[in-house]
Amino acid sequence: MIVEPSPAKTHQMIRDARRRGLTIGCVPTMGALHEGHVSLIRQAKSECDFVVATIFVNPTQFGPNEDFSKYPRTLEADLEMCREAGASLVFTPQTTDMYSPDTETIVRVTKLSTVLEGAHRPGHFDGVTTVVSKLFLITDPDKAYFGQKDFQQQLIIRRMVTDLNFPVQIVTCPIIRESDGLAMSSRNRYLSPDERRTAAQLYQALMLGEKLAKETTLSPPEISARMQAHLESAGGIQVQYVVLADTSSLETLTARTAPQAVGLIAARVGTTRLIDNLVISL
Amino acid sequence: MIVEPSPAKTHQMIRDARRRGLTIGCVPTMGALHEGHVSLIRQAKSECDFVVATIFVNPTQFGPNEDFSKYPRTLEADLEMCREAGASLVFTPQTTDMYSPDTETIVRVTKLSTVLEGAHRPGHFDGVTTVVSKLFLITDPDKAYFGQKDFQQQLIIRRMVTDLNFPVQIVTCPIIRESDGLAMSSRNRYLSPDERRTAAQLYQALMLGEKLAKETTLSPPEISARMQAHLESAGGIQVQYVVLADTSSLETLTARTAPQAVGLIAARVGTTRLIDNLVISL
Repeated sequence: MIVEPSPAKTHQMIRDARRRGLTIGCVPTMGALHEGHVSLIRQAKSECDFVVATIFVNPTQFGPNEDFSKYPRTLEADLEMCREAGASLVFTPQTTDMYSPDTETIVRVTKLSTVLEGAHRPGHFDGVTTVVSKLFLITDPDKAYFGQKDFQQQLIIRRMVTDLNFPVQIVTCPIIRESDGLAMSSRNRYLSPDERRTAAQLYQALMLGEKLAKETTLSPPEISARMQAHLESAGGIQVQYVVLADTSSLETLTARTAPQAVGLIAARVGTTRLIDNLVISL
Repeated sequence: MIVEPSPAKTHQMIRDARRRGLTIGCVPTMGALHEGHVSLIRQAKSECDFVVATIFVNPTQFGPNEDFSKYPRTLEADLEMCREAGASLVFTPQTTDMYSPDTETIVRVTKLSTVLEGAHRPGHFDGVTTVVSKLFLITDPDKAYFGQKDFQQQLIIRRMVTDLNFPVQIVTCPIIRESDGLAMSSRNRYLSPDERRTAAQLYQALMLGEKLAKETTLSPPEISARMQAHLESAGGIQVQYVVLADTSSLETLTARTAPQAVGLIAARVGTTRLIDNLVISL
């Protein structure tokens, strides 16, 4: 496995692999890898000849009061996990390799980026779509792999790929969960033991939503209100949003107008902001 | 020469050409071709194995009160010129091939796009950078060719290519002029015979600027004031801007602080909006 920080050298190696007839899979990450990331790399390896994982904590997708500076950096452990999962190349640029001081270009998905996570994290998705565009242009993949944990992100990237004619197929892989249901996230390591126990309630709330959708005739807003009440009764959870939304447009469903919805939760547990989601049949 | 409206088929043909080891040159146009465009295709043909010209009147780069609906469409003559100039493939998408009703992604060069043409044509360069991104992703060129006539446009595209890591080399080709100096433009055909004669004054003003820079110690603002006076004395010309600007940043030069400047003019002759420019040694 090659580890390469240079965008130009990475691009060249991938062009060479492509010229040899290999198909290219890309797994963009911010490092601090966990079993969720590993599942993406394994999936890529099962479908593509040459898998490039990227590890870059992208400053432009963090707000001024967010956790960029304290975001976990665990490069050695990350590289070991990439190797074991089957990556051929790991692209590990420095910030200065990715952004020159006079950079001024952004890629923006104008509507999907403004709701839910976009409303709570202004500018976040501009940072994501811009850096993912760059990573796609550097790594020129046939397929790119994203986790369903960031449900809105994978929708936005799909939209961007379609709108700009990126010749990339987006593959969304299932959420990997801890034994108590907590969705794996690099930010889980911020949680204290008490907070860690509390955090499992996010998944419990999603399961409650699924159960209510199946066993009652409650409307989506009534269901999300019960989910929110569940979270608030747990103690130690500050809910930012709980909605049942259309799985394509992310518009909040006011009635059972679609065969399924995505239940989306964002909440703080202590100072740690967590998100989770579940596709629910209506 | 192949003429192909489908983005997917165009992409596939170019991927196949690349797989055969050919280098790809791209010449994006809005059709209504003239000798300026022909010079771009010829230059591309001299440097690349496989030249794709694109013909697409891009609606998103026209303002609501601009000339999108009356912009000249001369496809048959355009194809003949492409053939004679050596194009291998002409990509001729319909608007619906390029933009789905739910498209919402834009590519924006945030600073360079707001001055000069960008100030007079709000949103214009967002349309340009978005469609050029799409054309680059569809045609995957090694080199792409733009005319210096649109000086700010080629600077913005160079900025975008650097910022987003497009693996494309931008080549800027010299302005092609009529015998009286008028820069060739698809919009020249809007001019009445009287207006056509008047329009030559734009180049005369640029030549005056060059002469004053060479033969006097006047400052750039003093020079551009004389150029503006020249244009206004001609009659029938409404000046939108005349500046001597930095050739990289496009900031207006207030003194002779660089070895060269670009003189940039935008003006209406009758109802037709024209632009022209000249790089001037200081």
